[in-house]
Amino acid sequence: MTVNPLALTPDSTDRFTRWGRSPKPVALSQLAQAFLESQVGAGVPVALTPVAKDLVPEFRLPAAVLAALIAAVGESQVLLDPMARLLHSRGMSYVDMLHRRGADTSTVPAAVLQPTSHDQVLEVLRICVAHRISVVPYGGGTSVVGGVTRPADPIGIVISLDELSALVSLDEVSGLVRVQPGMTGPVLERLLGARGFTLGHLPQSWERASIGGYAATRSAGQASTGYGRIDDMIESVTLATPIGTWSAGRVPASAAGPNLMQLALGSEGAFGVITEITLRVRRLAIARRYEGAIAPSLAAGIDACRELAQLGLTSAVIRLSDEAETVATLAMSGPVGVKRKIFDRYLAARGVGQGALLIMGWEEHSAAILTARRDAAWAVLKKFGVVSIGKGVGSTWEHGRYSGPYLRDTLLDSGYLVETFETATSWVELPKLHEVARRAALAALVDPEHTPYVMSHISHVYETGASLYFTVIDSGGAGSIKRWVAAKAAISSALHSAGGTITHHHAIGRDHAPWLGAEVGPVGMGLLRAIKSELDPTGIMNPGVLIQVAD
Amino acid sequence: MTVNPLALTPDSTDRFTRWGRSPKPVALSQLAQAFLESQVGAGVPVALTPVAKDLVPEFRLPAAVLAALIAAVGESQVLLDPMARLLHSRGMSYVDMLHRRGADTSTVPAAVLQPTSHDQVLEVLRICVAHRISVVPYGGGTSVVGGVTRPADPIGIVISLDELSALVSLDEVSGLVRVQPGMTGPVLERLLGARGFTLGHLPQSWERASIGGYAATRSAGQASTGYGRIDDMIESVTLATPIGTWSAGRVPASAAGPNLMQLALGSEGAFGVITEITLRVRRLAIARRYEGAIAPSLAAGIDACRELAQLGLTSAVIRLSDEAETVATLAMSGPVGVKRKIFDRYLAARGVGQGALLIMGWEEHSAAILTARRDAAWAVLKKFGVVSIGKGVGSTWEHGRYSGPYLRDTLLDSGYLVETFETATSWVELPKLHEVARRAALAALVDPEHTPYVMSHISHVYETGASLYFTVIDSGGAGSIKRWVAAKAAISSALHSAGGTITHHHAIGRDHAPWLGAEVGPVGMGLLRAIKSELDPTGIMNPGVLIQVAD
Repeated sequence: MTVNPLALTPDSTDRFTRWGRSPKPVALSQLAQAFLESQVGAGVPVALTPVAKDLVPEFRLPAAVLAALIAAVGESQVLLDPMARLLHSRGMSYVDMLHRRGADTSTVPAAVLQPTSHDQVLEVLRICVAHRISVVPYGGGTSVVGGVTRPADPIGIVISLDELSALVSLDEVSGLVRVQPGMTGPVLERLLGARGFTLGHLPQSWERASIGGYAATRSAGQASTGYGRIDDMIESVTLATPIGTWSAGRVPASAAGPNLMQLALGSEGAFGVITEITLRVRRLAIARRYEGAIAPSLAAGIDACRELAQLGLTSAVIRLSDEAETVATLAMSGPVGVKRKIFDRYLAARGVGQGALLIMGWEEHSAAILTARRDAAWAVLKKFGVVSIGKGVGSTWEHGRYSGPYLRDTLLDSGYLVETFETATSWVELPKLHEVARRAALAALVDPEHTPYVMSHISHVYETGASLYFTVIDSGGAGSIKRWVAAKAAISSALHSAGGTITHHHAIGRDHAPWLGAEVGPVGMGLLRAIKSELDPTGIMNPGVLIQVAD
Repeated sequence: MTVNPLALTPDSTDRFTRWGRSPKPVALSQLAQAFLESQVGAGVPVALTPVAKDLVPEFRLPAAVLAALIAAVGESQVLLDPMARLLHSRGMSYVDMLHRRGADTSTVPAAVLQPTSHDQVLEVLRICVAHRISVVPYGGGTSVVGGVTRPADPIGIVISLDELSALVSLDEVSGLVRVQPGMTGPVLERLLGARGFTLGHLPQSWERASIGGYAATRSAGQASTGYGRIDDMIESVTLATPIGTWSAGRVPASAAGPNLMQLALGSEGAFGVITEITLRVRRLAIARRYEGAIAPSLAAGIDACRELAQLGLTSAVIRLSDEAETVATLAMSGPVGVKRKIFDRYLAARGVGQGALLIMGWEEHSAAILTARRDAAWAVLKKFGVVSIGKGVGSTWEHGRYSGPYLRDTLLDSGYLVETFETATSWVELPKLHEVARRAALAALVDPEHTPYVMSHISHVYETGASLYFTVIDSGGAGSIKRWVAAKAAISSALHSAGGTITHHHAIGRDHAPWLGAEVGPVGMGLLRAIKSELDPTGIMNPGVLIQVAD
């Protein structure tokens, strides 16, 4: 997905402010609109500020630096035009989206570089070290935690990975693919699929996020229960760092000291730029089945999912909504009218009338194994009172699996506050963490005029615990940024106090950095600083990410 | 297995020089003896030097240090007697065993401390930092890579973990056990088994190795294909370091920056002392089946194992011997006489007369799943010409799974050189690595009077590759240490050149340290040094392990 260094056009505001552009706008159904209004009231739309050339700060790089950068990557790869700089100025959190809609240009870089080789990246970093110029590596730009939201630093640059996006090689015997970091999921899956393979890493941001971004943020996808987190898939990485080339990882396993590759995964551009990644791929599943079920309650559903995980019987996708998310999902995209009445009667008769929706997506290498594993799983599910609702809801979910960000555009258009946060803990702590997080989100946003809607689901299941993914919707309007930032702080502290990690798969970025110290402790923060000093002694790499920058 | 601070007794030589003491000596069968003599000639026994009090160097710690250490842990926990110090002076590689048999006491520490709490370990380290006294953490003492073989430093101490060996807690809901580092596998399995759980980590050193040692060395066990490596099982660790307490890890998964726990795993005592470990446990398998098979060749067996791994059909234990190991195994413990003739005729008729032995140990949570997975696996195996030889050989292997170190004692008694080395690589590189390693071992030891026997097996199978474990047997005699050290160096360089890791599960210790730089590169070594400087600024922790000490 190459971003062309275009001049500003009538389309620019759309490009800067929206995830989805035609042909994929998502309209809110009347049912969804009615449900939202009944729960949180009407949205309070805020006028959108069109982007214009005179809003974008002037270019400020010293001439000598510009000349050196041009010598390093070629003139065509140094983008100075306002639109290219604007498009690489921040990520895509709710707060970012509001800033985009307000045409905030305070984070625009001086230049966007598009190197075409690892050596070019090394050379760019060498120049930036010499001139103390900050560097933000930029893949798909989909960070929701401020990972690519530049500090207000007018002479910093962005390294775009759009032209480092090739498939380097595919080892079909070992099942290993080497790719450059700027490749997106759809491109990789198309290339792999043609050879009978899949990576199976499908985050909601899949259409735009880059493989390098997955690696840099320890991403997890919707099918990670079956295919593993990105950190389970990566076997080696190469980085261009300010002190030179760093290659880490050894296939398939080694006891040669600490696993240093685990420092590159989750490094979020703070140690260097990931320029190549080797990942384990799998043969395409030939037997698939997506289905829905209803557990009597979230608690019963948690018990059932835990049992599946501990007996090795989980489907590739397994997703358990809490009661609030189940109500919202059924109201907004479930059966309607008479069908809904029949559906409700069916559930009530089976004791799951106020239950929790469970989506399971089975992907196996043979129909026989799928049947054996699914039969064994259903024997477990029935013990916990889980009731099948068939394949329909499973395939509805599957077809809408990437619609979230489009829907967010629509909700923002309608003036709603909409944001997510996520965490994880052990099974024994999970019900408490769910309750603490839900209450923290409600308490942080409730006031006489606004009642937020807070819902969540378990999105990734492990033998020892699971993740929780929350969505918060409220009426928005002016002041939403301040309101959400305060709420996010309260929620983050509550997550930590209740034993949850500050992030299960969204990473730290700038937004979570104030809580990282509490999670990894003073010795852990000392280690992060020591590692950063070793690899990035002048501190040019994505400053403020992971490690807070002193004011 | 508490080591009592005993005075020297008639039993001392045995304790110092042997893995196995009564009631578990292993005699070499006549068949085995005959096979060995036909392959490598008779062993050349070297006289064993009895250990005696006057061999052990005098205690040399300054009085002020001793007083501080006694104040820290109590007088009963500071062992100064010759036998306790001798028993904590080195590990159990072949070279260590020869030094033990020669009553080499050059690595004896000044004192052995047995702290009983994390805080006591912290305090001991504080004292050692203040007085620049080197510290070697010592669990089961089973390292075969010089990981606990002290440098010749007369005022260094050893921290024994024998009295930090409790089970702290078991969370049966999440399937998480917290243990202290000195606990051994048998004790843990007994405690877990009584509650219906297992760790499933079963290295050959299981009877004596400690859980802390597993963590410190990134150990893998015989059932790691099914239960995972120790680094897959550990969810958090706490260390006492020279700069204070370091806790790392977060259950069950997190994207909160780099995974710093992966620096503690494989740290081999160079960064601090692991004082607590939280591990994922599993419910005991209720369906088990161990069986044997013969593949037409190692190459065909590799293809079959790869197919199983990539289709998710591996057994918990999967072990494929090359042709040389198959010949030796069948000669030394297979059918004899007429039975052997019938066996050979059976194999020959099925085209696997010169084949490769495959051991599979299935451990599943239900008989139905075992049947489904095993049936699917056998459908694959048959495609590659693999022939079943039934349950007998599988259960023979299972019953002898910890006999290796006992057998080594016996071979050393008979004057044989016997040692192992191991590596791993991707599937596509595996056949070449096997051949390169085998030739390197043969070339390094062959001379007009000695022909070594070199055999190997794949011991751990991954989706993208596998490990190789080699055993070398030769006639020994005087000069064996020098001869093996030279051979080991040649083999290690060959492994690295052929793309293998220097170690798949034995760790780095002092013996592999010269090759670590080649494996992790200069930036990787710089990171290890930076991490060591951060956690152990005065360099007291297990000097020479991981990072070579300049002479």
